[in-house]
Amino acid sequence: MPTEETSRVEAFSDGVFAIAITLLVLDLKVPRGLDAAHLRQALLEQWAAYLSFAASFAVIGIMWVNHHRMFQLIRRATHGILLFNGLLLFMISATPFTTALASEYLGKDGQRLASVVYCGWFVLTAMVWNVMWRYVASPARGPGILTDSPQSDVIRGVTRSYLIGPVSYGAATLVAIWAPVGGVVLAGAVGVIFALSVVVDPTKRYR
Amino acid sequence: MPTEETSRVEAFSDGVFAIAITLLVLDLKVPRGLDAAHLRQALLEQWAAYLSFAASFAVIGIMWVNHHRMFQLIRRATHGILLFNGLLLFMISATPFTTALASEYLGKDGQRLASVVYCGWFVLTAMVWNVMWRYVASPARGPGILTDSPQSDVIRGVTRSYLIGPVSYGAATLVAIWAPVGGVVLAGAVGVIFALSVVVDPTKRYR
Amino acid sequence: MPTEETSRVEAFSDGVFAIAITLLVLDLKVPRGLDAAHLRQALLEQWAAYLSFAASFAVIGIMWVNHHRMFQLIRRATHGILLFNGLLLFMISATPFTTALASEYLGKDGQRLASVVYCGWFVLTAMVWNVMWRYVASPARGPGILTDSPQSDVIRGVTRSYLIGPVSYGAATLVAIWAPVGGVVLAGAVGVIFALSVVVDPTKRYR
Amino acid sequence: MPTEETSRVEAFSDGVFAIAITLLVLDLKVPRGLDAAHLRQALLEQWAAYLSFAASFAVIGIMWVNHHRMFQLIRRATHGILLFNGLLLFMISATPFTTALASEYLGKDGQRLASVVYCGWFVLTAMVWNVMWRYVASPARGPGILTDSPQSDVIRGVTRSYLIGPVSYGAATLVAIWAPVGGVVLAGAVGVIFALSVVVDPTKRYR
Repeated sequence: MPTEETSRVEAFSDGVFAIAITLLVLDLKVPRGLDAAHLRQALLEQWAAYLSFAASFAVIGIMWVNHHRMFQLIRRATHGILLFNGLLLFMISATPFTTALASEYLGKDGQRLASVVYCGWFVLTAMVWNVMWRYVASPARGPGILTDSPQSDVIRGVTRSYLIGPVSYGAATLVAIWAPVGGVVLAGAVGVIFALSVVVDPTKRYR
Repeated sequence: MPTEETSRVEAFSDGVFAIAITLLVLDLKVPRGLDAAHLRQALLEQWAAYLSFAASFAVIGIMWVNHHRMFQLIRRATHGILLFNGLLLFMISATPFTTALASEYLGKDGQRLASVVYCGWFVLTAMVWNVMWRYVASPARGPGILTDSPQSDVIRGVTRSYLIGPVSYGAATLVAIWAPVGGVVLAGAVGVIFALSVVVDPTKRYR
Repeated sequence: MPTEETSRVEAFSDGVFAIAITLLVLDLKVPRGLDAAHLRQALLEQWAAYLSFAASFAVIGIMWVNHHRMFQLIRRATHGILLFNGLLLFMISATPFTTALASEYLGKDGQRLASVVYCGWFVLTAMVWNVMWRYVASPARGPGILTDSPQSDVIRGVTRSYLIGPVSYGAATLVAIWAPVGGVVLAGAVGVIFALSVVVDPTKRYR
Repeated sequence: MPTEETSRVEAFSDGVFAIAITLLVLDLKVPRGLDAAHLRQALLEQWAAYLSFAASFAVIGIMWVNHHRMFQLIRRATHGILLFNGLLLFMISATPFTTALASEYLGKDGQRLASVVYCGWFVLTAMVWNVMWRYVASPARGPGILTDSPQSDVIRGVTRSYLIGPVSYGAATLVAIWAPVGGVVLAGAVGVIFALSVVVDPTKRYR
């Protein structure tokens, strides 16, 4: 029964992640009614849309991987976990909006605000993640929620590695103030670099 | 075989819930072609869209949790259950429309109608839920549908707790007549308060 | 292994059904920028959108139930089944378009064409269904695909009952020529009546 | 545990495939506010949208089948596989955009660029697929990832058959330069022909 419980929470979460990540494509607009020369130019001019699309895809993708890993350590979906998970999915499901904002304003007047909102939303999301994990891994929750002991090295490793999120996205937000495009690039790069580093060093199993 | 049956009904329902909850983001519109100062103002001015988005996310989220709990008690997906479940999903899948309505009209002329439709739709949804549950839990359905006896305390507890839905959303609808924004806030708050109360008192397992 | 195979085909199909049925809501448009009196009127005037939404929800819902039932009888997902299933999902995934067409034109000039396309698409879909089932249930396919013998009463019953689809939607298409709104109503009613009749007579297990 | 891992990766991937394939319908636009005669004409005039819709549905459908087959051979979802799978889903999730581009420009000025982008994106996607498979099937990865030995005939057969993708879509891209509509038709036809050939010769199990 407990196992079944987490499996349905995971299935629902997978659905929200998959839909949020795929809805991002709706921010890529096809320029209408142009001739060949202007079409080429118009497609190149919306580089901000491609960049935001790719960066958000990387961030949501990495967050899905982290979700997957976190729930491998969770044995039972308690009400607290359902609640935090709902908050996390709320943050994820709003990402297509912040992405559309960056997509519309990068490279134009208003790009600083757009980029700070874009990166700042990921900071908040990463903070939800950390609070959720600390709730889950707290010894007060006792055994039974985690598949492993809250005192174990694996759990402590996860706790440490989850701090990378707020720090990285926080740095991206700071960059966004001076260099709005740079903030979005950095946010997306965090995901890609992270993924690559794990592949190169396969001993890093949890993040 | 029976178990497999419910599992596919649950998977399909999860899909509809996940898509409906994630489509809500499409109601958050990016203001186009503004300069930095106007962009900030325009983003703040669409508070009604953020409020409706968050409230609907909370309501659909809590309904998903309830769906999850209800199907843990159901052993076999009979035709009657499929039918009621379809009706329930119909109500859920229309929620992005009532949300878009509130999102567009809260704070403007027409907000009373929008808010009453918004809250009233949740009343209808909660009523479908109660009728479905009474159908499922009726002793006439005999043993075999529920994992537990229809006379058990758990089942009676669920029956009682399901009445919270129509009553709360009914109150929100009444509030909406006098204070349209308040109605939407109340509808969303029902979900959040409910979720928090369950976390604080973990003995309340079924709602 | 074979079981696992059908389970992933079912999961993918569930996804497409769930998304197609939930995307229908995008055809419900919120009238923008109206005062209270005009908003009420505008909401009532788009009855065609509500009708098409409800009818398509019923038809896709019933088709999902049928898909569910059919795959309970199928043991292995062969290439032929994948191919037919793909064709079926293609028909389903285009339904939001025919629904949008009916939604826009019912009650206006152009409604006959819209309604004939709407109902006619369901005729084609039901025909794909019948061809797929005959392929699956053909004795030439031998044992191993079905969980039951192709000569069995259950299989023959399904074969007969699948004829209801093309006939009913064909009738709706004919009605649509003279009474476009009636055609859409009839198409939606087929699903609802069918579902209700099964609930009343629970011995009708397969359709 | 390993089995569970791949199963959640597959579920997430199924979600992205199912959503991407179903979002294609949003490119079919209903012409608004026309009378009956002009509606018929307008519906016929958007043949490019129907063609692009059908072609992309066929290509994504076949890619889903391939994904399904590939993961039947994979026993464990390593980080490398997650990374490549993410890249693959990125390509798939952008397909509604290239489809919308072809849908808007085929038959108009700008069609060559649209068709080359459309077909070229599938070339890139097929290349990601090949790189991913070679990574998976590399003997350096050792036993444990695949259910079968990397030296086996089945694996070598898959490696060979995966080359069909880049070659076919490459040919479609070349055709697109001279005959833009022909390129899109060819890309879609690759999927259909492939599917039919497998049905006719059931010994071809892997592609």
